[in-house]
Amino acid sequence: MPDRRVQVVEVAPRDGLQSEDTILDTATKIELINRAVDAGIRRIEVCSFVNPKRVPQMADAEAVLAGLPPRDDVTYIGLVLNRRGFERAAAAGLREINVVAVATETFAQRNQGATSDETVRAFEDIAPLARAEGMRPTLTISASFGCPYEGEVPVARVVEIVQRGAAAGAVEIALADSIGAAVPTDVIERLGAARAVMGDVALRAHFHNTRNTGLANTYAAVEADVDALDASLGGIGGCPFAPNATGNIPTEDLAYLLDRMGVDTGLDLARLTAIVPWIEEQLGKRVPGLLSKAGLFPAA
Amino acid sequence: MPDRRVQVVEVAPRDGLQSEDTILDTATKIELINRAVDAGIRRIEVCSFVNPKRVPQMADAEAVLAGLPPRDDVTYIGLVLNRRGFERAAAAGLREINVVAVATETFAQRNQGATSDETVRAFEDIAPLARAEGMRPTLTISASFGCPYEGEVPVARVVEIVQRGAAAGAVEIALADSIGAAVPTDVIERLGAARAVMGDVALRAHFHNTRNTGLANTYAAVEADVDALDASLGGIGGCPFAPNATGNIPTEDLAYLLDRMGVDTGLDLARLTAIVPWIEEQLGKRVPGLLSKAGLFPAA
Repeated sequence: MPDRRVQVVEVAPRDGLQSEDTILDTATKIELINRAVDAGIRRIEVCSFVNPKRVPQMADAEAVLAGLPPRDDVTYIGLVLNRRGFERAAAAGLREINVVAVATETFAQRNQGATSDETVRAFEDIAPLARAEGMRPTLTISASFGCPYEGEVPVARVVEIVQRGAAAGAVEIALADSIGAAVPTDVIERLGAARAVMGDVALRAHFHNTRNTGLANTYAAVEADVDALDASLGGIGGCPFAPNATGNIPTEDLAYLLDRMGVDTGLDLARLTAIVPWIEEQLGKRVPGLLSKAGLFPAA
Repeated sequence: MPDRRVQVVEVAPRDGLQSEDTILDTATKIELINRAVDAGIRRIEVCSFVNPKRVPQMADAEAVLAGLPPRDDVTYIGLVLNRRGFERAAAAGLREINVVAVATETFAQRNQGATSDETVRAFEDIAPLARAEGMRPTLTISASFGCPYEGEVPVARVVEIVQRGAAAGAVEIALADSIGAAVPTDVIERLGAARAVMGDVALRAHFHNTRNTGLANTYAAVEADVDALDASLGGIGGCPFAPNATGNIPTEDLAYLLDRMGVDTGLDLARLTAIVPWIEEQLGKRVPGLLSKAGLFPAA
């Protein structure tokens, strides 16, 4: 796929670590972020500004940000869910925030203690404030491909949230398969439906490999002309709704797939892969990523 | 993808078990085969007629076949590599044989102790004999997407073997990614090139998930109008060239992907998935398949 470019957004330091039991110290998180940037990552979720009692792994958000080298060519992203979080992100000098809205009622209630509509309104509230501060507001729509409580999710509900997000000033909107239920035909359908109503807002997708369909879905997303794909080094992150299952798309495995397809990502495969054993050391466990175990092809 | 039908060929009892350390007894192999058939599998690799000193797991090929219920609607497949193996298969009353030719020189030498050309000539030798006995001869081309010793494999070499296989009387030809190096664009290119020269011979593909691209490749194969896909229950099989890596495509994960895409496979997802914990018990280890850990979506 020559002339095709896809940006890989690294989420290991936030979405990845958040579901891991081992709490990493601030210096180790900073090293993880710097190693990812050294391997070519140019956008990276580095923290979330949420209640530290609910997500202890993210309690040192400000300290992580303070320890990162300022780089014009790298965008650090922080997750915020409400105005309080936004104010912390703005005070910390963050240039891009991501807000997560939830497509289904039960998932929104269980995950964020809010209605689905309230999660969308949080973005509508925050996005103009962010823009006024010169920050890039992006919206992720959780449960866009299925809900662990309600099952099938109507395409129309996802499209409606996309429209509201675009109208509120999102610079990018991500459809997230939070529980790893999607298959490629879902991706083609839902990314196509989103793209049709979002004008020139960038389109991103977030897949989990819970049922082994994650990498197939990234390929379908490339076919559907996605601009950016989330991935997590080593595939760390797990899936809170399926305790034995793997989680995020492993960044290095995705980079291998895209690289061999001729899609430009700007990533250095060998450097990415070399980070994975280091992550396994820090977390004290094997991670789901496969390329680091199998090795590159052709052999370097 | 309504109106699309893909046949899943179960390979756990042969390609799967062959690389497993635990030797299963004949009764357990027969139970595995019967359980797969109960879940809707209609073609299944059940044994190989090779030197039992080289592949001890396959030493009881005749006994396995003798213990299987004769079923008009199920095709049992045996692997043969030479005329001696063919004669054993014919004597055992098998109705379909699969011959493996190797696309690259070094892989052929190391894996079968023959030149690449000799592996193709073995099929040219056996296929007419099989047809004369009323047996279906199929050809698998190993290392069709990459070689662990030689790296990139020219498309032209694969196409040449496809042409020879079709001319020799193959009823089906499979391109095999023996080392799990392929990505979807390779699949589109190579399956398309094969299809263009094979007339009405059926097209099959065999992928490994060594680098996490396996399921993405099956989706690309469906796009490329494949007739049949190999898969192994639980993903058992490993990859002898990457000891830490996973092996075959897990049948139940593939069935989930195809089922959710609206592709008809005739498989019963719940029954397939229920076989996996039983396999883990027999082998005394966890297997790579993910659906059995995550559960069906929507929940049954």
